[in-house]
Amino acid sequence: MQHFLTTESLNKDQLIAILDTAESFTNVDGRTVKKVPLLRGKTIVNLFFEASTRTRTTFELAAKRLSADVLNINVNASATVKGESLLDTLRNLEAMNVDMFIIRLRDSGAAEFIAKHVSPGISVINAGDGSHAHPTQAMLDMFTIRKIKQDIQQLKVAIVGDILHSRVARSQIHALKTLGASEIRVIAPRTLLPTKVDSLGVKAFHHLEEGLKNADVVIMLRLQKERMQGGLLPSEHEYFKLFGLTRERLALASDDATVMHPGPINRGVEISSDVADGSQSVILDQVSYGIAVRMAIMSILAGSE
Amino acid sequence: MQHFLTTESLNKDQLIAILDTAESFTNVDGRTVKKVPLLRGKTIVNLFFEASTRTRTTFELAAKRLSADVLNINVNASATVKGESLLDTLRNLEAMNVDMFIIRLRDSGAAEFIAKHVSPGISVINAGDGSHAHPTQAMLDMFTIRKIKQDIQQLKVAIVGDILHSRVARSQIHALKTLGASEIRVIAPRTLLPTKVDSLGVKAFHHLEEGLKNADVVIMLRLQKERMQGGLLPSEHEYFKLFGLTRERLALASDDATVMHPGPINRGVEISSDVADGSQSVILDQVSYGIAVRMAIMSILAGSE
Amino acid sequence: MQHFLTTESLNKDQLIAILDTAESFTNVDGRTVKKVPLLRGKTIVNLFFEASTRTRTTFELAAKRLSADVLNINVNASATVKGESLLDTLRNLEAMNVDMFIIRLRDSGAAEFIAKHVSPGISVINAGDGSHAHPTQAMLDMFTIRKIKQDIQQLKVAIVGDILHSRVARSQIHALKTLGASEIRVIAPRTLLPTKVDSLGVKAFHHLEEGLKNADVVIMLRLQKERMQGGLLPSEHEYFKLFGLTRERLALASDDATVMHPGPINRGVEISSDVADGSQSVILDQVSYGIAVRMAIMSILAGSE
Repeated sequence: MQHFLTTESLNKDQLIAILDTAESFTNVDGRTVKKVPLLRGKTIVNLFFEASTRTRTTFELAAKRLSADVLNINVNASATVKGESLLDTLRNLEAMNVDMFIIRLRDSGAAEFIAKHVSPGISVINAGDGSHAHPTQAMLDMFTIRKIKQDIQQLKVAIVGDILHSRVARSQIHALKTLGASEIRVIAPRTLLPTKVDSLGVKAFHHLEEGLKNADVVIMLRLQKERMQGGLLPSEHEYFKLFGLTRERLALASDDATVMHPGPINRGVEISSDVADGSQSVILDQVSYGIAVRMAIMSILAGSE
Repeated sequence: MQHFLTTESLNKDQLIAILDTAESFTNVDGRTVKKVPLLRGKTIVNLFFEASTRTRTTFELAAKRLSADVLNINVNASATVKGESLLDTLRNLEAMNVDMFIIRLRDSGAAEFIAKHVSPGISVINAGDGSHAHPTQAMLDMFTIRKIKQDIQQLKVAIVGDILHSRVARSQIHALKTLGASEIRVIAPRTLLPTKVDSLGVKAFHHLEEGLKNADVVIMLRLQKERMQGGLLPSEHEYFKLFGLTRERLALASDDATVMHPGPINRGVEISSDVADGSQSVILDQVSYGIAVRMAIMSILAGSE
Repeated sequence: MQHFLTTESLNKDQLIAILDTAESFTNVDGRTVKKVPLLRGKTIVNLFFEASTRTRTTFELAAKRLSADVLNINVNASATVKGESLLDTLRNLEAMNVDMFIIRLRDSGAAEFIAKHVSPGISVINAGDGSHAHPTQAMLDMFTIRKIKQDIQQLKVAIVGDILHSRVARSQIHALKTLGASEIRVIAPRTLLPTKVDSLGVKAFHHLEEGLKNADVVIMLRLQKERMQGGLLPSEHEYFKLFGLTRERLALASDDATVMHPGPINRGVEISSDVADGSQSVILDQVSYGIAVRMAIMSILAGSE
């Protein structure tokens, strides 16, 4: 593995190798000296064309715990990323003998474009490209599910929210399929579902209550407030009434159903506070495991050089 | 000590323990390799809700000299810090297994609120909350005073300036009282003094000349220019005429009186340049000792985990 | 050497010592663990009064590969740098026991002003001051030339572009002279040449074709778009027509002429894409060598303490 761009480009063995490697790093995060020398003397560049303190922070932390040197470069969000100037930026950073790019961009497919153009010795990790993919998020979700439910193949997993625009959902669906989840459901208003969603191998539901029935894992997506202005949704209040996860609705799922969310959560919009903070929620575990999973992906890529 | 939030919550032994520990770190700052491995593998988060290059820098440097990994997070000053979303931010950072928060906020009391809500293993250092407290500044001031004057109990200390809005003054007064300073004076125009200032155990003066008499230590506060616009003060020029520390006025204090200022100084507003740069000024020593004192506080908190 | 401020203040032996030291660091940049412990426990401050991700990044990387602790301080470009407040900022950072300042400022001569005022133990590196000097850029250019052409004394070097405003050109001319280049040419429209350019010991040309004849090295300068608005130049298109380096024009130079550019390049303005990406271009090598050269300068200054 030279790059880590999408979950769909990887086979089951590769996904499981990442999860297994991450397992060993959860120990590092818990101990007094949270540091291993695996990437000592490597230079990792956080190249963010879209502001994201949260994701950038988890990658920075993961890299530092692997003892790498980290450069944070936030390219002004307003500067349009033209193919040519983007490549010039990359070429310059490459010339500084960096080892890995963590890239977040507005344009779907941009991470693959970059990976195609970097020099042989350099790895690219996709930290989110447009509405296309966010594969490290999906892998930490798989890790969390496996940790709690052990066998992913037995599970009915429901993803709720704006499937149409969600890079997280897309990456989750591909990972769940490859890992053999028994059933993958997507639950969303018609306006927020891709037109041929069935072709992804999922079951689509337009009513939350119906889709939640017997689900073992419920993944809530963050509602982007922009969708309201775009006319795709009436209002936050209306959305919560129809698609917000409440304690009552959660009761329709399996007794020990796990509630997940990639964060940051909108309390009272897609999820009620009592569910978010409740005993079935593993939202903060996802964050914790996110460091270990990112350490795993970085060290696997570095090892393949 | 799990947290370091105010000087008033600590007893004399605790304050002295910090000063004594800081003493050992002044050596580290002076040597060729300015680094000790005490906090290796710890993650320290500079979480600043108010911009402050200066204070952030001293904490970052102190943490790096202790070999910790440092994350700088500047939360947009314009985003109101609502209790709930602030807690979600904290919960997420906690989930990343960080060890310590250095927090600066606009709201008085916010550091204690946060300390109350963090997980047991995590320490909070208050780097300034509203006009409430700035205890690391006060401790470096105590360190500087002790370094130069040895016995704090013999001293008359005068604090001059906007006592009403100063978190620095509040923290200094509590520390000086606990350490047993012989007399604490506050000198300010009436509009810049708290209404029941006597209850703090200080003597209030409205005339600089009077308050400076026989003072052993004179601490000048920075004048916030906003106070002019707020109508609490006529003009900078007027302020300097009445409350600016000049060579002539300083002559009213003890012969070997020490002049201090938390910085950054407004030359010609609260202090004249010849005094600021003069032989009695220890303003830059305060900055130097600030690193050692912050290293001491961080390592004491880390040791208590 | 306590400071590194200009190329003209150094003699030939000093320039060659830097190039020779840089040679040893090119190995570090190429190996798996890109890290040497030479500056461990030193604190290096990137103090940038002018935004520059690119230059800041190369210094940060160089410092980290030398194992130094790095502080990045970006002073708001809008805040006028008054002599006094600049000195106060420096004094405060000095008091934190930092070892080296990397300084970029808008004002020509500001780096020397600062170097004159810092404490004896502290080194200053000029990372660009106004249109005065950018000596680390010039040194990496000398390194690149020597690497490719071996003997600088045999070479005709042409510098093309806005000589008048270019701190890079000024530093290059002085370095080339000291190292004994056989001929130094400057090629620019009359409006972009200093009035007494001959006094610099260079030959001035106003036609690109003429100036390129038999040149062994062609250094293109970046065209600052502000010059158009200033009325010094008609348009980018016009500029390219007259002074843009194309494949046809490059053919007028020596057969194995080397093409250089300090970057970032304006494709189609001062240089055509086929030349920039062509076999005679060493633009990306310059970037690579830039790390080694900056490591060399930092370690020489640190060793002289």
